[in-house]
Amino acid sequence: MSAARVERLAALVAEEGLDQLIVGDLVRPGDSSGDATANTRWLTGFGGTSAISVVGPDARVFITDFRYTERAEEEVGDDFERVTAAGRLLPELASRLSGRVGFDDTATSVANLAKVEAELGEGVELIPAGGLVERLRRRKDETELAAIAEAARIADDAYESVLAGGLAGRTEREVATAVHARIRELGAEPSFPAIVAAGPNGALPHATPSDREIASGDLVVWDMGARIDGYCSDCTRTFAVGEIGEPAREAYELVRVAQRAGLDAVRAGVGGEQADEAARAVIRDGGQGDNFGHGLGHGVGLEVHEAPRLGKLSEDVLEPGDVVTVEPGVYVPGEFGIRIEDLVSVTEDGYRNLSSLPKELRVVE
Amino acid sequence: MSAARVERLAALVAEEGLDQLIVGDLVRPGDSSGDATANTRWLTGFGGTSAISVVGPDARVFITDFRYTERAEEEVGDDFERVTAAGRLLPELASRLSGRVGFDDTATSVANLAKVEAELGEGVELIPAGGLVERLRRRKDETELAAIAEAARIADDAYESVLAGGLAGRTEREVATAVHARIRELGAEPSFPAIVAAGPNGALPHATPSDREIASGDLVVWDMGARIDGYCSDCTRTFAVGEIGEPAREAYELVRVAQRAGLDAVRAGVGGEQADEAARAVIRDGGQGDNFGHGLGHGVGLEVHEAPRLGKLSEDVLEPGDVVTVEPGVYVPGEFGIRIEDLVSVTEDGYRNLSSLPKELRVVE
Repeated sequence: MSAARVERLAALVAEEGLDQLIVGDLVRPGDSSGDATANTRWLTGFGGTSAISVVGPDARVFITDFRYTERAEEEVGDDFERVTAAGRLLPELASRLSGRVGFDDTATSVANLAKVEAELGEGVELIPAGGLVERLRRRKDETELAAIAEAARIADDAYESVLAGGLAGRTEREVATAVHARIRELGAEPSFPAIVAAGPNGALPHATPSDREIASGDLVVWDMGARIDGYCSDCTRTFAVGEIGEPAREAYELVRVAQRAGLDAVRAGVGGEQADEAARAVIRDGGQGDNFGHGLGHGVGLEVHEAPRLGKLSEDVLEPGDVVTVEPGVYVPGEFGIRIEDLVSVTEDGYRNLSSLPKELRVVE
Repeated sequence: MSAARVERLAALVAEEGLDQLIVGDLVRPGDSSGDATANTRWLTGFGGTSAISVVGPDARVFITDFRYTERAEEEVGDDFERVTAAGRLLPELASRLSGRVGFDDTATSVANLAKVEAELGEGVELIPAGGLVERLRRRKDETELAAIAEAARIADDAYESVLAGGLAGRTEREVATAVHARIRELGAEPSFPAIVAAGPNGALPHATPSDREIASGDLVVWDMGARIDGYCSDCTRTFAVGEIGEPAREAYELVRVAQRAGLDAVRAGVGGEQADEAARAVIRDGGQGDNFGHGLGHGVGLEVHEAPRLGKLSEDVLEPGDVVTVEPGVYVPGEFGIRIEDLVSVTEDGYRNLSSLPKELRVVE
């Protein structure tokens, strides 16, 4: 797998007029300062924390520190020259660079850029070039899609298991803890700390689960995902506990229709801005335009937020192999919040929905 | 609490010849790009993820985004002007800066520095100034020490609970999962994913727990910590499963004596290099100098690795209120690893040990 990926990346590096690209985060303070990232894992299969790679038409270098020498032997293919830095990673990196070298300016600290520049050989030029690996990571292959689908299935299972115990009388935190435990029982990890936000807390789009007891009359926004083999899922459902009243029911229905409209817009060739607008128009027409303050969705893969973006300012265009969320919401401050989120893989003529839970308003006790 | 801290920081900012200091990570790519950090939490009490603060003799500004407006009202004191950025955080930040402004060059990406610079008013100058808040965070107050001690106590309890079930026949991963669950049961979170590394895996200082079954004859390196109220603990013990043989016993004894020597060296006024050397000399004299490839220890607090450092290259000098690990090790490739780590708080004339587990070789089944 990594052989094909590294070839695709080397070709893109050449296409961008570069001789080499540095892959890995150079943001950590301290001595070793080369963080293996989702990009590293995608490119090399390496699952440790400390590594920098250099890739170009004539370069396949993988640098780690002494802690990971053996792990790199096992995980990183022979197409890479595997190097254990004698001391810090940045001087070793600098010694391997030549020509026009792209670096990820979004993931290199000002201090680390200065450190690398201080050690460069003659004629080496560092060029800001963020986002190249991320561009390739968008197109998920079959193995990746299978892992994400499995993570989504585990999350669906975890919803049902925890819902079976009811919501009323449990605190947000208890529900979040139970769902984390269930995800682990199913052999995965939470892909991020679950959001369980009841009543007015639901109007805070990224509330931390609190000790608030869930009560009859609450809408409960419940956003979570699983991670398996490194790949994430992401799903949100909003449940009604007992009778929630007419305004909340109407708002729920509005979000449901908007989410449907967002899904209907998803296919290869559609802009992220266009898909966002399809859902947003519904919410605006329903008079809740001011209460939908975030974008429609985002890519999901090795990271729970990755390219592409679906939102008002997005310039991304959907491609086959993209895996994205579609998650409109309405948040009425002091009252309630509603968000409905599916995870879908984009195809030529539409999408495949990886989230299987129903979206009609579900009333639980 | 935050009022006293912000005053200490403002004084330090002035002392450094700066008018203002930006607090928060500016490393995240994407639109909002201001990550609240341990520094933010320490300074303001804010526990959300998105925030940038500006502090100086005449500045107390706290900027967050719409998701956290209400949370900031609750958590951030009235000594700060609390601002919700209309859109992205960086332009809002830029509009608040004046004079000589320090920024954390170790936690600001090249791309984000360029974004802020593009929006600066006249006469504003950005000056690399990493590590200022970290310097103040070293001196833990009573509340912080109590939280860290409690986290250490929970970790000790979790060791004993899981050890009660024996080690032989369980996989490394099962032990790690059990200990994570126990830490959660005790009302905390793991401060990092536990390392449980048996036999030759123990020679990899940062091994990920594997499906290797722990067997009689193994040494098991087990490194873990808990986090409570944001504060971390960190502890390592190495256990013998059945009969481990004479060379491993001797190496264990060597590490135990070295750890004792390291502890004996700890007191205010001692250099991080000096404490490291006290332990390292013992291991070197025992003929294992080449098998101790990391530093003696590091500070622990809101982050599991923070200032100061204890190691060969450290220029830090221990101060009262520092909380540090003392963790020498010996790693024999292909054979076994041993590490013994206590967490101690530094006092004028020595230290207080927050880890209570015995360090004589403990043989378990």
